[in-house]
Amino acid sequence: MNTHSQHLLLEFFDCDAQSLDNQALIEALMVDAANASGVSIVQKIFHTFSPQGVTGVVVIEESHLSIHTWPEAGYASVDFYTCGDASPENAIAIIQKGLQAKRFELLKVLRGQSLNQQSMLIAQHLSNGN
Amino acid sequence: MNTHSQHLLLEFFDCDAQSLDNQALIEALMVDAANASGVSIVQKIFHTFSPQGVTGVVVIEESHLSIHTWPEAGYASVDFYTCGDASPENAIAIIQKGLQAKRFELLKVLRGQSLNQQSMLIAQHLSNGN
Repeated sequence: MNTHSQHLLLEFFDCDAQSLDNQALIEALMVDAANASGVSIVQKIFHTFSPQGVTGVVVIEESHLSIHTWPEAGYASVDFYTCGDASPENAIAIIQKGLQAKRFELLKVLRGQSLNQQSMLIAQHLSNGN
Repeated sequence: MNTHSQHLLLEFFDCDAQSLDNQALIEALMVDAANASGVSIVQKIFHTFSPQGVTGVVVIEESHLSIHTWPEAGYASVDFYTCGDASPENAIAIIQKGLQAKRFELLKVLRGQSLNQQSMLIAQHLSNGN
């Protein structure tokens, strides 16, 4: 069986602080992201921390999606880890728009194969205001 | 608040196939790994796939730990994502020994800060047979 997987590590900066502390909004966004990526949800956990911040993990048949938010810093960290034919790139715009992130960075790591035989893609994106 | 976090991406190769398909063993290993790292478990999900393979995610106060196994390929992918003063390096030997992995690779990414201002550490380790 093919162990090759895509792991997108995403850093969303300058997000809307209220959205980052809204567990219901974050959960809906991650479910939308999963659906847009063409993956199948197995189970999910979402948790709000005190005094603020949300963590969510969505276990999918193709591996997992996760989000951790720091509302006070306007920052969210998101991972899309998918094996098979999923299209996790489809989820990026959904998360960026939902969090109103002004910019984000992406690191793509190919898992299930030697890490030092690959070129890692680091990309920076600025919001176009849409 | 400080958003800086450590994200260890670990690839364990040439593992024991039976261990990789043993959900109870995998779950116990991940709990041991969390405890050795000094993190606090919030909630966990473990799931066995058909015909084989285990996925587990442990949500911790400091972010998350995850594992995905491919018994037929002797391969497991593990992530330790921790903010604060956790010591996720302590968990590596526990997982390696528990899965009887003959070698592993580690990619350490510092999250919560610009990805392109850091040097990423990629390390390869061979089992010493212990």
